[in-house]
Amino acid sequence: MILFNSLHSLFLAFLFFTLNVHSESSTTYIVHMDKSSMPKMFASHHTWYSSMLDSLKTSKTISSNNPRSSPSLIYSYDTGAHGFSAVLSPDELEMLKNSPGFVSAYPDRSVTLDTTHTPEFLSLNSYYGIWPASDYGEDVIIGVIDTGVWPESDSYKDNGMTPVPARWKGICQEGQEFNSSMCNSKLIGARYFNKGVIAANPGVNISMNSARDVHGHGTHTSSTAAGNYVKDASYFGYGKGTARGIAPCSRLAVYKVLWEEGEGRYSSDVLAGMDQAIADGVDVISISMGFNGVPLYEDPIAIASFAAMEKGVLVSSSAGNSGPDLGTLHNGIPWVITVAAGTIDRSFAGTVSLGNGQTIIGQTMFLASALVDNFPLIYNKSLSSCNSTQMLSEAPHGIIICDGTDPLYIQVSNITKSMVFAAIFVSDEPELSWMPTPGVVISPKDAPTLIKYATSTKDAKASIKFQQTILGTKPAPAVASYTSRGPSRSYPGILKPDVMAPGSSILAAFSPLGFAGSLAGYIFLSSDFAMLSGTSMACPHASGVAALLKAAHPDWSPAAIRSALVTTANPFDNTKDFIRDYGDHNLSYASPLAMGAGQIDPNKALDPGLIYDATPQDYVNLLCTMNFTQKQILTITRSKKYYCSNPSSDLNYPSFIALYNPNVTERITKKFHRTVTNVGKGAAIYNSYVIQPSDEGINIDILPFRLEFGNRYEKLSFTVTITYSSNKAGKVLDGEIGWVENNANHTVRSPFVVAPVVSSW
Amino acid sequence: MILFNSLHSLFLAFLFFTLNVHSESSTTYIVHMDKSSMPKMFASHHTWYSSMLDSLKTSKTISSNNPRSSPSLIYSYDTGAHGFSAVLSPDELEMLKNSPGFVSAYPDRSVTLDTTHTPEFLSLNSYYGIWPASDYGEDVIIGVIDTGVWPESDSYKDNGMTPVPARWKGICQEGQEFNSSMCNSKLIGARYFNKGVIAANPGVNISMNSARDVHGHGTHTSSTAAGNYVKDASYFGYGKGTARGIAPCSRLAVYKVLWEEGEGRYSSDVLAGMDQAIADGVDVISISMGFNGVPLYEDPIAIASFAAMEKGVLVSSSAGNSGPDLGTLHNGIPWVITVAAGTIDRSFAGTVSLGNGQTIIGQTMFLASALVDNFPLIYNKSLSSCNSTQMLSEAPHGIIICDGTDPLYIQVSNITKSMVFAAIFVSDEPELSWMPTPGVVISPKDAPTLIKYATSTKDAKASIKFQQTILGTKPAPAVASYTSRGPSRSYPGILKPDVMAPGSSILAAFSPLGFAGSLAGYIFLSSDFAMLSGTSMACPHASGVAALLKAAHPDWSPAAIRSALVTTANPFDNTKDFIRDYGDHNLSYASPLAMGAGQIDPNKALDPGLIYDATPQDYVNLLCTMNFTQKQILTITRSKKYYCSNPSSDLNYPSFIALYNPNVTERITKKFHRTVTNVGKGAAIYNSYVIQPSDEGINIDILPFRLEFGNRYEKLSFTVTITYSSNKAGKVLDGEIGWVENNANHTVRSPFVVAPVVSSW
Repeated sequence: MILFNSLHSLFLAFLFFTLNVHSESSTTYIVHMDKSSMPKMFASHHTWYSSMLDSLKTSKTISSNNPRSSPSLIYSYDTGAHGFSAVLSPDELEMLKNSPGFVSAYPDRSVTLDTTHTPEFLSLNSYYGIWPASDYGEDVIIGVIDTGVWPESDSYKDNGMTPVPARWKGICQEGQEFNSSMCNSKLIGARYFNKGVIAANPGVNISMNSARDVHGHGTHTSSTAAGNYVKDASYFGYGKGTARGIAPCSRLAVYKVLWEEGEGRYSSDVLAGMDQAIADGVDVISISMGFNGVPLYEDPIAIASFAAMEKGVLVSSSAGNSGPDLGTLHNGIPWVITVAAGTIDRSFAGTVSLGNGQTIIGQTMFLASALVDNFPLIYNKSLSSCNSTQMLSEAPHGIIICDGTDPLYIQVSNITKSMVFAAIFVSDEPELSWMPTPGVVISPKDAPTLIKYATSTKDAKASIKFQQTILGTKPAPAVASYTSRGPSRSYPGILKPDVMAPGSSILAAFSPLGFAGSLAGYIFLSSDFAMLSGTSMACPHASGVAALLKAAHPDWSPAAIRSALVTTANPFDNTKDFIRDYGDHNLSYASPLAMGAGQIDPNKALDPGLIYDATPQDYVNLLCTMNFTQKQILTITRSKKYYCSNPSSDLNYPSFIALYNPNVTERITKKFHRTVTNVGKGAAIYNSYVIQPSDEGINIDILPFRLEFGNRYEKLSFTVTITYSSNKAGKVLDGEIGWVENNANHTVRSPFVVAPVVSSW
Repeated sequence: MILFNSLHSLFLAFLFFTLNVHSESSTTYIVHMDKSSMPKMFASHHTWYSSMLDSLKTSKTISSNNPRSSPSLIYSYDTGAHGFSAVLSPDELEMLKNSPGFVSAYPDRSVTLDTTHTPEFLSLNSYYGIWPASDYGEDVIIGVIDTGVWPESDSYKDNGMTPVPARWKGICQEGQEFNSSMCNSKLIGARYFNKGVIAANPGVNISMNSARDVHGHGTHTSSTAAGNYVKDASYFGYGKGTARGIAPCSRLAVYKVLWEEGEGRYSSDVLAGMDQAIADGVDVISISMGFNGVPLYEDPIAIASFAAMEKGVLVSSSAGNSGPDLGTLHNGIPWVITVAAGTIDRSFAGTVSLGNGQTIIGQTMFLASALVDNFPLIYNKSLSSCNSTQMLSEAPHGIIICDGTDPLYIQVSNITKSMVFAAIFVSDEPELSWMPTPGVVISPKDAPTLIKYATSTKDAKASIKFQQTILGTKPAPAVASYTSRGPSRSYPGILKPDVMAPGSSILAAFSPLGFAGSLAGYIFLSSDFAMLSGTSMACPHASGVAALLKAAHPDWSPAAIRSALVTTANPFDNTKDFIRDYGDHNLSYASPLAMGAGQIDPNKALDPGLIYDATPQDYVNLLCTMNFTQKQILTITRSKKYYCSNPSSDLNYPSFIALYNPNVTERITKKFHRTVTNVGKGAAIYNSYVIQPSDEGINIDILPFRLEFGNRYEKLSFTVTITYSSNKAGKVLDGEIGWVENNANHTVRSPFVVAPVVSSW
């Protein structure tokens, strides 16, 4: 009887479960707890949280007779955060909020991947600078929070690597198609976290239940940061050469937190991965993803990276790919480094050779060795508008010139659908990343040469050579149009992004199960190396440089490393002009809201002269000025050892932002207090300088204007006063404040902007 | 006045020239001359021929007042043939025929390239056998008559090569995109011959007027014969590995005689190339082309190869790709070796992995790294007949199973046109060489597994892995269906082809301007290596082995080299069964009319025991039995030193063919006289054996049945008498006649066939 009853109620439970599970009522929450409130009876935080959830179940069963399964613990967090994640109903959540030690709770969220398009260039070399000075990043451990790893990739071979440092506490977690022997002295750790996915999608079948990367993103980012040397790498013939990471001798530990299933991306899993990475003992965390629309106390990256920062672990994050509008940036977290994406000085070309001997170089990314040799060249006004697949399908066999008025991607798409043998497109598109059919894009300035030959010559013919790589493209870097812009809605009072790094057309290792490109509009391609673009690709460049800096300066704090990167960043491109912004139609100069201080300069960052340091308490002082409750602050800080007795928005940051409300006319005076530490060789004298915006009566004062350091590690303070008016009509103005050493050995640059306010998340 | 008149008549001449040149009246003729008739007044044969043509012009101008330009000399030939080629009107030809020394003349003809489809295998190795014994063919020069060469190919690098032998008289001819420094110690000569093309197509613009190969065929055949080692070669990922020629240390001299323009292929150019190759001092000529429908005395390959044979130069030629019907073979020339094409033990696969864990291996040749991972598998009767592009275009996104009744190529074509993501075809096609879209061909025996899974499983999914290479495919070799079959219409009394060599899916160097494959039905591909199939690919394998034999046995005649290849050829495949014929639906055993004696066995050919030799006079004795005029014979022999005093069809050939007329009922006795030379180490005793056809009262006698050689180079004769009836209903019966040494060290095999007669050309 009892048996029967039980089976019966189990059946009912099953029914309810299947009916209810997708309803709003059961959601994964991330719950932050005050660990100091833990009753002594519990052996660990984990048993405390489990017991708490059990009590919810008990009370609920009694109170509501609801037969749904208990709110199960997904993860407990103890390093990057204090707390746990669990699937909770609104009732359960309310009950939980009344539990002792409860700090905060917010729903699990999806994150977006920072991959759009991409290339690479930084002046690292074996002869001088940061590579030899850091032993190529040896023994620094980079934790990569991403889609996992393809361990068989040549980028993870450990030839030339010394044994794994004894301090490493991580593991090589077994899983589907992944055994513990797949780690080595390069790839020293691999773990995976998908309880959040499973909780949100009960019954889901995880197609690759291990740290193995089926997407490619994590393999790309981790090999960008610290991949070993791989000869003869290329992306379908483009960019042929040796692939290697920025810190080729650093170690990698990967934490797979992004999945193919369901929404695929849950903050509970991300937090679990970061939490574990810190516990395992990584030195740098590279995280190429971000959460949009969440305040700092509900942003798992902000929360876990606070703990990381406390432990001296720098977190390098991507700004996002939502540009070029202002205020689109994520990861605008005061204690991480936020990286924007720039272009590189390499482009992929197809050479058009006309029958008369003339040559035109165009852009292409066609992913096969197309043979277009001495074929008829076709141009006529109706066909060449390339807006009719009907006409194009019936066109004569040859190379069709397209100079229609439709956007480039539509003309390319029409040509592809019509199975046209080859095409030459006329467009001023600066960042081509897609060409599924044998075609090249030539500049409008070269079009008359082409069209004149095609129309004035009987039997006009042309050849096109694909898979060509051109180095030294100018201008480079330029700010990628897609890179998200500041001000940061997480905290607009800090200038974000911090720096720019190569993000467009970056070649790195890839998962052969990932989508690496397409042909003919319908054929998907696999590759061991892929060319990707996005701030996701920029972030691991900065992570790699951070690892090199950590190896060269083991005692530097995360703030010191960031300061070195910011104050040595380069605002110039390879034409010796200011870096330009591809997000702007006029290609005007990029503002610090697009690129921070400029392109990272690893060799200069090795020896920055002065640094702007910051302690955990400094960040807490900043948090105390924000409109947060004590519990919201505790969610981030996890500890009552910090106090709000000295709130201050004047964080010792290596850059400056002065905001204005364009709807109010006023004259504003903003004062910044800063302290710099002399990390040069010894006594040093620095003189200040200012580069003002060219207009509108902004006044900048630096006091004192000279800093005289008697010895190394001495700290000196100064104030910057910016006086400006709010009548800027929403414009962003920028300039530079800096310190130049007497002997000109060091220049310590800080960008500043005057920008319109944005609303906070 | 005189000046004006001249200009005026020149203008008229030009007018007529442009009007008349394409008319039937002016054709290129190859004219054979008796050089011994040359009047002593001429300094050279060239001036004699020029003067003769001038006289035609003069007489014609007088007789007919025809202002057309004079019949110009295209080439004069002096080594492979005696004579010249010229554009002649019928009148001019008639006049020429009355000139002293005239032997014969026939129109220039087009030849066909022997490329159909393709792979490679022969048991050459560095440890024993012909490679070390011949020093890998060092200092033997192979002349390749073809489409030229791509000199930058890695296959022509000369690392490891010793200096060019002093006896070499060839040059590295300058031309378009070709300078004399492009030859080296591997590629020792390059010349081009296109006067025949230009004469037939006056005013034609030769697009690559040099020995540079824009097609790829000549680069493929020459690198197959003697290409140097190239690491990491592959055909779009298939057959990855090291590429190298059969005689990797032999030298190459290339003679470009095939062109992209006009018909592109003229016997006048071919003859010029062979003529020059012999004069330059090549040791072996490899010619992967042939002339259909011409008697020996009008076949430039037959003519030039007679001169080559006289000089000890073996000519290796392709049987043609017109199989599998009997009597389709070309190059059935008694003094050359005629090579049939076989398959190899390598295939190109795609692995289908079903969602239930089952795996099916299929064939594919899709030329890109398609990504087909975990996609829906679609099977329903109407869609899967794959005969409607309309339906297929609207099919759901996934992998479509095609098991329609249309021929495979039509289903593949429909899938491609419809841009279907991926497909699995069910077919028993044994020789797949084309797959433009992501698809695999599985065997009908595997189809039930696939279809059962697809139809019985909700959300059936599959993955396909491309670019896989499978070695050890069985059975191999098999006779390729396309290889042309004997009997030879040039002279049916000699069993042709002689041997079979690898011809299907052969990977070798290619011209990047040649068509290497296609994608999506409309995208052409370029590659430095290509996979081709055809007797064109088989021929250079035999040429390479001939070069190795020449290096190991410099004193062997062309007949001796051929004999060694024939009597040691292997009639068995890798299942230890007789070689099968893909040209036969039942895959029955291949007859010698398809494959000659069997697959060439280079290591055995090194030490054949006995050889069947032949002298130039022996071939003349054969010619004298044919229904040729004295002048027709002289066209071939070029010299009156040969006489027809001893006509004999009983050429000392290492194989036997007995013909019958199926329309006449009779009992036939055919007697063959043969002489073998002992090329073993010393005294030797051989016993004869016969393997009879299993039926129909064929009787074979060998007398004596034992041959006792007292010493090396001793010659002994024997007779073979075959008695058979003509009531064979057109069937081909075959067997084997052979000699086994007492100690079993040598077996000297000769195939024989009883076959229906074919008409001669």
